[in-house]
Formats: sequence, structure tokens, C-alpha cells
Amino acid sequence: MTAALDSTTTRGTVDLGPAVELVSKEEGHRQPLAPEFVSAEDFSPLEVAYDFGRVRREDIQAGPRNIWRYKKLLPVPSNVEEIPNTEPGCTRLVKADRLAKALGVKSLWVKDDTGNPTHSFKDRVVAVALAAAREFGFDTLACPSTGNLANAVAAAAARAGWQSVVLIPSSLERAKVLTTAVYDGNLIAVDGNYDDVNRLATELAAEHENWAFVNVNVRPYYSEGSKTLAYEVAEQLGWRIPEQIVVPIASGSQLTKVDKGFREFAKLGLVDDTPYKVFGAQAAGCSPVSAAFRNGHDVVQPVKPDTIARSLAIGNPADGPYVLDTVRRTGGAIEDVTDAEVVEGIRLLARTEGIFTETAGGVTVATAKKLIEAGKIDPDAETVLLITGDGLKTLDAIENEVGPKATVPPSAAAVHEALGL
Amino acid sequence: MTAALDSTTTRGTVDLGPAVELVSKEEGHRQPLAPEFVSAEDFSPLEVAYDFGRVRREDIQAGPRNIWRYKKLLPVPSNVEEIPNTEPGCTRLVKADRLAKALGVKSLWVKDDTGNPTHSFKDRVVAVALAAAREFGFDTLACPSTGNLANAVAAAAARAGWQSVVLIPSSLERAKVLTTAVYDGNLIAVDGNYDDVNRLATELAAEHENWAFVNVNVRPYYSEGSKTLAYEVAEQLGWRIPEQIVVPIASGSQLTKVDKGFREFAKLGLVDDTPYKVFGAQAAGCSPVSAAFRNGHDVVQPVKPDTIARSLAIGNPADGPYVLDTVRRTGGAIEDVTDAEVVEGIRLLARTEGIFTETAGGVTVATAKKLIEAGKIDPDAETVLLITGDGLKTLDAIENEVGPKATVPPSAAAVHEALGL
Repeated sequence: MTAALDSTTTRGTVDLGPAVELVSKEEGHRQPLAPEFVSAEDFSPLEVAYDFGRVRREDIQAGPRNIWRYKKLLPVPSNVEEIPNTEPGCTRLVKADRLAKALGVKSLWVKDDTGNPTHSFKDRVVAVALAAAREFGFDTLACPSTGNLANAVAAAAARAGWQSVVLIPSSLERAKVLTTAVYDGNLIAVDGNYDDVNRLATELAAEHENWAFVNVNVRPYYSEGSKTLAYEVAEQLGWRIPEQIVVPIASGSQLTKVDKGFREFAKLGLVDDTPYKVFGAQAAGCSPVSAAFRNGHDVVQPVKPDTIARSLAIGNPADGPYVLDTVRRTGGAIEDVTDAEVVEGIRLLARTEGIFTETAGGVTVATAKKLIEAGKIDPDAETVLLITGDGLKTLDAIENEVGPKATVPPSAAAVHEALGL
Repeated sequence: MTAALDSTTTRGTVDLGPAVELVSKEEGHRQPLAPEFVSAEDFSPLEVAYDFGRVRREDIQAGPRNIWRYKKLLPVPSNVEEIPNTEPGCTRLVKADRLAKALGVKSLWVKDDTGNPTHSFKDRVVAVALAAAREFGFDTLACPSTGNLANAVAAAAARAGWQSVVLIPSSLERAKVLTTAVYDGNLIAVDGNYDDVNRLATELAAEHENWAFVNVNVRPYYSEGSKTLAYEVAEQLGWRIPEQIVVPIASGSQLTKVDKGFREFAKLGLVDDTPYKVFGAQAAGCSPVSAAFRNGHDVVQPVKPDTIARSLAIGNPADGPYVLDTVRRTGGAIEDVTDAEVVEGIRLLARTEGIFTETAGGVTVATAKKLIEAGKIDPDAETVLLITGDGLKTLDAIENEVGPKATVPPSAAAVHEALGL
């Protein structure tokens, strides 16, 4: 592994498609595209700014059946689809009539992102991070993670032929360790909690010029991958923005990027600029953004997470304030649900639509239910739920909840009796 | 649950699209479309016969991004996409350059069917079975299963709002029980082995006129779903048939249907009628078809399975003789691999392409490797590997094989040491 970064030379030559510079979120300071994530001017997160030019529906429709069809709207090279990477996206948008009926709403869709290569939306952000990191001269893909991100990084690096360094807490469940280790990168278990692992990642990112920590030093590019969820929903609805969308909140990045995606589509004239409301979903055991929303605060008070929805368990969400802005601007709301409600959300989606989601999806379904019951989600307006991860990865959540109806001897009579026939 | 079948009335009214009758595989006896699976004339399996009329590429391309785009080639109603069902298919065809290099071949593709709703190709066959069963007046979807099929049936029934009856051996691993039970159908654990469960299913199918056992009484329709694997591969290659394809063998149905799919596409003029070779893959611990092929036999001697590739562990494969016919006719071959080779196949695919397959996929990759090394697969001809299920469902296969490179304290120095930096 050799360092290949030289900011003076690479900046001039990087091809990140329509991306032109980085802008600080607070005061709008501008700086050239580089693998940096915090503004030295105002210490706020850096975000990618673009010059899209003209983008037509036909350009998108002529592209591949994955997120690279939106390459003219992402910070990736113009020939991104020719370079080895995963091909996430174009997952199903399912008309959920049975769930709609159960929830008492008229029109409901489920965006089922379990169909991605490693079965979560993280494949989207990691694919964009990998594409951008390659342009900056990195040769190693890295992350701290407790699950979905570890899978996505290890798989994408394997596909690209890159080294990977994935840091996990040593207490992580064996299943999550296996599903990352199988890709044969450098998986390192760290004796410590996720905060320790995260701190270590930031330290290592500063030391290794050739290590792209997807959610640290290339985070501005990485996070743009979530916009593709909005693009796909709008395209799959027949080029229009849904009236309401419910998004789970971990760092909060995904929610703000879904909103950004809709706004970009409207601004480019790809869809009509119709109003929409963005709703946020948290688990009660880690609900700092929901609490801030409820209390009318602009800042988010960090919490110590305690919930089964571990993929959402970020106690100090970096994009919390921006989530509050987005939800308030669009007229949405944020709610949180108990772990028991999360499990019921998982089961409700499974039994009505045959879609088995991880705990984060249970949070989204249960929160939607609560918001509908509270009259905050309009039952007559069309709603989309983002289901971002797979139930196979969080089996422990339902372990004590579901099972066979009966165990019987191998006879038809016994089966009939068990079924009350 | 009420019986709704009346063969005299339903036969006249069923709309199964291009399907016109059932034909016995041995002697070609014809009979009307009905929920029957064995010919009363010659006791051979019944297969669907069609009158396709004209089918153009544009008809297919105008369809949805799932198997219903091929509805004019399947035994399903003309309006199938409007009826609640899962929407499997249109999974990724991945250009596998790194795996190709590792195996020493020029051009290799992986059909990654882990992207289906319940992450195996079984969603394809179950969706077709459900669509046909509805036309015949059934209202309950059922199966005996040890895994993937149970997931697919329970999920599809949930989505359709049907009852389901899924029979599993009571010894089944907890994970597979959970991933079926979550859909909240009638999951019944049976004290007995898979053979006992299978016998029980046949008995129950005869007793319950409204229970569609997907792989028993509606098997002729069910099995046609596997043709869509061939259709998709051909369409995704730019409307052409690959020169070589490697298919895992359980009952053997999938392999024969992939061949049927290619032949139909060629006959309809959707692709050029170019020659292709079909290769079969088995685990050494359950290799009755491979053994028959090696010994030049036309019949398959049943075996007692003993392999980690449990989704392929059918000791008496119903379509074994037809597999032999297909492979010999096309000039292919059949091989089998040890459980150790299966695990290495899983790991090879994961580390080269970032795709984590179940044991059946490991069988396919390892068998391809063996056939290439033996010179039976031409390294200069284009090859497609069918990866039909997901590694998340068979974690036990790699449990003792992979893990973190090291467990370290939370310090950069410790990470460096672990990585030899």
C-alpha cells in the first residue's frame, strides 16, 4: 500500500463528473474537491456542489439498471460504470396495498432496499465513496462499523480488487463478523465499544494517506449516494415526487440527502416541483433528533443509545440539526417508537407484504403507524416508506417472538388438529 | 379455507396466457391444463405446452423490471402484473473479471439471484406457481421445505393475502425457522426427516383441494419459473445465448428449464440460434446425476445425501434423466465437488467479486473450477455461472473458516502491528 495522494496534482486531474467544489454547510465557504470532510473555515461539514448542466430523463433511462444511471448527478467519474465496483440500486418500489389497509391509509409504497448486493442501502453510499476515492488516488477502502457498512465496504473492496480495513468492536455478533470476514479483507476486531472504534478510525484516517475511510475522510462523496434513493423513488413513481416519505434517522445524513435528491430532480425539471413532507423515524432508545423536534430545539442533545435498532444507534447524530431543518421546512414530523413497537413493525411488514426487514425498517414502519394515528401523516396523501436493510441480519430481534404454530408427528391428522381443521 | 376447485368449470375459464395444455415428458400424452403433475397415461412428469404466437423484444422491454416482463412465455394470466404477488427477477448479471482471472478463463459472468425478494431463485418459481394456482381456484399456498422454498412460499402468500401451510422438519436450524415464521403463515414443524415431510405433503395435497403445494400439485407451472433465469441472462447479454452455462442440480428441474428457456428464445427469433453447452454441478455428498453422467448411464441411482449443500441435497432427483439428456445433447458435462471445495468456492466468489453465496453457489463455483481445470469448460468461450441463493442463509458453512485477522486494543499502533505495517 503506497501513498498516492498529492493534493496539488490530483485536484487538477480528478474527474468527479458534475461535482465542482466542496461547500461548508454552515457559512457556505467554498473549496476545491478534495478528500476532506470538515471546513477549516467554520468547522461545519463539507458538502459536494455541482454544475449539472442539462440532465434529461432520456439520459437517465439510457443508463444501466443501477445507481450509475444517475451518474450525471453524483460525484463520480464520467465512465464510472466501466470501473469495477458494486452495482447497487434500482431496487423494488412495492405498492403496499395490504400494509396500507392495515395502517388505514389510501396509497402506500415500500422502497425495498434489501435487494442491494449486501442487502442494505449502504451499498449505495459505499459505491459512490469507492468511485470518488479512486479518483483521489486512494487504494484502500476502510470504515469503522457494527454491521451493514462493514458488509458493504468489504464486498465493494473485494469486487474492485482493493485492500480493505474494516474495524469492528470485538463484541460484535458472530453472524455480522462472518458476513464481513468472508470477503477476505483486513477485518480487525477492536477491544472497545463503537465510540472507541470510531475514534481509532479518525486517527488512522489522518495517518494513512491511501486509506479512504468511507464515512470519515471521503464522507462528502459517500453521503451523496443516498440521493439515489430519492431519484429512484421519483423515477419509479413515473417521474414525480411522493407527497410524504418516512426515512429512518441514524446520523441523519440519509434523510437530508433524500430531500436533496427530490429538490435536484425538481430543479432540473425532471419532475414537477410539487410539495412533499419528509418524516423522520427513530427508536425511543436512541431518539435525540425526535426529542429535539418535539421540544422545538434547533440543536440535538446527545444520548447514550439503548435499542435493538443498532444500525440507527448513533447517540450524537452529525446531521441532526439539518434533519430538523428539513423536516420543519417540508412540514413533516419526527417520532420515535419503543423496541416492542419496532418488532411489531417488522412483523407487520412481513405478514402484509412478504418483506422481511431489519430493525431499522421496523422503526420506519412503526413510526409511520404512530404518525398516521396521530394525524401527522395524511392518510389520503401518498406515502413512501424507506426500508433500508434486511431482516436476515438482525434475527435476534424476532428470535423470541415468532416460531412454528405447532410441532407434530408426521401425520395428516396431526396437521389438521394443529390447524384446527 | 373452502374448496374452490371444480375441474369441469375452471378448466374452461383459466387464463394462463400462452399455456395451452399439459404434455407428458416420456410419451407426449396431451391433457388439458389442470393442477396435475404426473401423466395418468405414462406416469411421467407433466410439462406445460404453449402457443406463443409472436413475441418481440419490444414486448419484453416494455414490461416491468421483474419476471412478468416474460409473461407471454409463462403459464400465467395476461394481467399477472396487476395481481398481488412478489416481483422477483431482473437480478444482476455481473461481469466477473476477477473471478475469471482466478479461474483462468477469458470471459465470465455471474447471475446473482441473491437479489430476489427472499434472496434465492425460489421466488421465481413460487411467483409463477402462485399466479397459476390462483387461476385454478386455490386459496392456500403450501410446500414441504428445508429452507429457501419455505421462505419464498411464506413471503409470497403474505404478499398475496393468502393462507400458507409450510411443513419443515422439526430439526431445522432456528435461523431458517425464524425467516419463515416471520411472515406469519401456518408453519408446522414435523417430527421426522425431509422424506417424512415430503410424503406428508403429498398426502395433504390429495386431501385439500384448495391447497396448492407449489412443488407437488402445481409443479408443472412452478418449474416453468426457472426459465426466466435463461431469459434474463440472454437479454442482459444483449439478446444472445452464452456459449457455456453452469447450473447447480438439486431435482434437476432448474437445469432443464434453463435449457428450455434458451431454446424458446432461439425458436421465437429473440436471439440467434447459437450453440451452447449446459454444465451441471453437484456436491460429492449428493451426486447421483454426476455419477450417472460419469458412468454413461441413462438412469439415476438414488443416494442418501450427506453434504453441507443442503439446498441441493435431493438423493432421488426427479429430473435426473432429463438433466443427463440436456447435458449430453448440448455437449456439456457434470461434475461434483467435496464440501471443502464448496466452502472454497464460496470464499473464492466472495473475495474476487464481493458476492456472498450460499452453499449451492459454492458448488457451482467449485464445479466450474474443476471443469475448467479438466478442460471440459473451454477457457476461451464465454461462461455464465448461476448463483441461486444467499450466504446469509448458510452461515454455518463458513463459521469455522473465516474471522477477523486479529483482535487488538483500540490503538493505531496495535492495528499497524496486526497488519504488518
